[in-house]
Amino acid sequence: MRAEIIAIGTELTSGQKLDTNSAWLSRRLQEFGIQPCWHTTLPDELETIVAALEVARQRAEVVVITGGLGPTLDDLTREALARLAGVELILHEPSLRHIEELFARRGRPMPERNRLQAMIPRGAEVIPNPIGTAPGIWISVLRKPCDCPPEVSPLSLGLAKPRTLIIALPGVPSELQAMWQEEVAPRLRKLGPAPIVIRERVLHCFGLGESAIEAKLGDLTRRGRNPEVGITASDAVISLRLVAQAPCEAEALALLDADEATIRQTLGDLVFGAGDEDLQHAVARLLEQTGQSLATAESVTGGLIASRLTQVPGISRFYRGGIVAYQTPTKAHVLGVPVRLLEQQGAVSAPVAEAMAQHARQLFQADLALSTTGVAGPDLDERGHPVGLVYIGLAWSGGVRSWEVRWFGNRLEIQSRAARSALNELRLHLLRHLPAPAGTQR
Amino acid sequence: MRAEIIAIGTELTSGQKLDTNSAWLSRRLQEFGIQPCWHTTLPDELETIVAALEVARQRAEVVVITGGLGPTLDDLTREALARLAGVELILHEPSLRHIEELFARRGRPMPERNRLQAMIPRGAEVIPNPIGTAPGIWISVLRKPCDCPPEVSPLSLGLAKPRTLIIALPGVPSELQAMWQEEVAPRLRKLGPAPIVIRERVLHCFGLGESAIEAKLGDLTRRGRNPEVGITASDAVISLRLVAQAPCEAEALALLDADEATIRQTLGDLVFGAGDEDLQHAVARLLEQTGQSLATAESVTGGLIASRLTQVPGISRFYRGGIVAYQTPTKAHVLGVPVRLLEQQGAVSAPVAEAMAQHARQLFQADLALSTTGVAGPDLDERGHPVGLVYIGLAWSGGVRSWEVRWFGNRLEIQSRAARSALNELRLHLLRHLPAPAGTQR
Repeated sequence: MRAEIIAIGTELTSGQKLDTNSAWLSRRLQEFGIQPCWHTTLPDELETIVAALEVARQRAEVVVITGGLGPTLDDLTREALARLAGVELILHEPSLRHIEELFARRGRPMPERNRLQAMIPRGAEVIPNPIGTAPGIWISVLRKPCDCPPEVSPLSLGLAKPRTLIIALPGVPSELQAMWQEEVAPRLRKLGPAPIVIRERVLHCFGLGESAIEAKLGDLTRRGRNPEVGITASDAVISLRLVAQAPCEAEALALLDADEATIRQTLGDLVFGAGDEDLQHAVARLLEQTGQSLATAESVTGGLIASRLTQVPGISRFYRGGIVAYQTPTKAHVLGVPVRLLEQQGAVSAPVAEAMAQHARQLFQADLALSTTGVAGPDLDERGHPVGLVYIGLAWSGGVRSWEVRWFGNRLEIQSRAARSALNELRLHLLRHLPAPAGTQR
Repeated sequence: MRAEIIAIGTELTSGQKLDTNSAWLSRRLQEFGIQPCWHTTLPDELETIVAALEVARQRAEVVVITGGLGPTLDDLTREALARLAGVELILHEPSLRHIEELFARRGRPMPERNRLQAMIPRGAEVIPNPIGTAPGIWISVLRKPCDCPPEVSPLSLGLAKPRTLIIALPGVPSELQAMWQEEVAPRLRKLGPAPIVIRERVLHCFGLGESAIEAKLGDLTRRGRNPEVGITASDAVISLRLVAQAPCEAEALALLDADEATIRQTLGDLVFGAGDEDLQHAVARLLEQTGQSLATAESVTGGLIASRLTQVPGISRFYRGGIVAYQTPTKAHVLGVPVRLLEQQGAVSAPVAEAMAQHARQLFQADLALSTTGVAGPDLDERGHPVGLVYIGLAWSGGVRSWEVRWFGNRLEIQSRAARSALNELRLHLLRHLPAPAGTQR
């Protein structure tokens, strides 16, 4: 079964905004053995959208639309679907009540315009939106246009005339994803098992470049292998995407398990996580495992380490808090780093990174403290240190140490990669100091 | 003139890799008054590519293809173009010599396979590639398929039969971009000044929803108006994209200036910035204007406000630093919020937000201090406060105040929107306390 994904929005065709929904939807469709063959991006123009839907309904068996379901005049997906199906738009009362309730909960009156979001093509089903105001639309239309009225039916299978299933979802990624997982995936599952099961797994590494990791993996990355292993780099994280094809889920998962084991053995502690995990999740897991508390003292990363750590639910059990010591006087006044040390060594130095970590550990009464100081750019610091030079400090009950790292890129990239480096050094430290598993000592 | 951009590669349709070329090409085409109306992404399948090119040649006047020009078996753009034009592929000797030279320079023999990259459809022109092996292809085909041989001609203008210009470039972004700037842009420029100049401007607002802002703008957002004003929402920021069409640049800019003035007058201080600016840039500008220093004390936003502020180059002149007081004891110990207040009011309360701001202001000896406390979820806090409830505190020389806000979304969305709300309250405070412009007082 072949699918087309249609993203709607002039902000996309004009290049103002990057479409990430289509790639996400492609990966989800493959989980059902549905092959995404076309991504189409369209402007907010009714005629253009209807014409592209005409093409899509004839070449694809499943069409997933994202965007154009908002309350404004340039949100045209509802109307385009009604035109395609040759039916009128009707008011869906439960959706209207849901929208009114959302506004009531926020203590605001519903603008009259939002009423539009409760309009759906006659004969379509509504896909409830648990997060936002825009409901989705599930409609099946004839493969070839004709005068017959549309029927609501899950898929073309078993019907006299071939039909195309169209699923329209909002463009807001969080709403799209929630609606897919909670509403669309269960409906697709009901249509029966897929002929080929495709399952994927993503492993993340930090500490080596893309080509060095590829070289270590050898034959695993050969094209056409099953699972196929793809490598991508994003903000210094190297991700391995394993895609397995098999007649059933158990077999696909077994293939993934075998490859994951090989990769973990080959790459060792370069691998820090899987799926949606980032370095802060690996750190949080290790803090939980060892029962230790953490504080931070950030200069060059300006709160980014704290911000990433506090993305992890429940982190308040381990993360005490931190200081953003952005100005040099703050490092002395608030954090207590000796003024003489700052003057002698300069704020960007290994001894200052270590002192920042030690003082943060005391101030927050934490088991561990992580610090950063460096030059994010665009200009050199007053002592002529180069942009991208970063010192990381770590203090723990057994002592203190520091690392010098050097990153390239713009200001935001240097801050982000410095934060990742710091979290990674903390992760490796925690791994080295893990208590031996019970039963391994005699 | 309308354009279609076609990106070719199964790694794109499968969702393994994100297509960034299409957005880049869209922005470049608009510089020539060419309106990108369709982005199409296709797998490495000959039949699918030829069929999509058939659709494209009939609906667009310019088609830009990216990808599928490599030396491997799944690189099919050359063959698809030959089929579309109804001609054979012929060897382009200068391209072959260029490829052989590139390999010689790297001290490697040219694999026989790379010979394929020097094959082009008969009648096409070659677009030299200054960086890599794959030359591009410039070919014009009849709008409607027929038996006539293809002609190489710049554009359809002035020709008896309408033709579509097709430009095929490699998928590697650095090669694509170099070839566009060095080869394609000069050729397009030679076709004469664009009949219509398209210029855009983006304004950002915070503090009202998408539909409420549209309602305030009234007729400005009418479809087909010039400039056209589009509205998009992203993480609680509402962006207005103005696109003006005019016979020359000066006229397009004058249209944009006029609309920008109207929008700023209508929306007042809801508008905080333009282009790539976010709220922290507006805050940084106002701190510079008023010569004031700032500190932060963050609980629910966990360092996100600090992190966003420190994205702004040169912010260290105004931003002293901050405390991430994530655990309740930290608010007392490090920040100095009275334990009694925390116990009586709970950590998530207006009085605690105000005390956090006051203590941060003292601790950092800053003119202003901004604080947040709230519930990011996924669970209620211990006092049963709902997820998304946030208190913002602001202390300045004249006093202290707080705001209660309520956001919906997941943990990351609540943190991000709470950080934006706090930065926005600070921005509005700074605007209210701006010194009167010189000369307005007598």
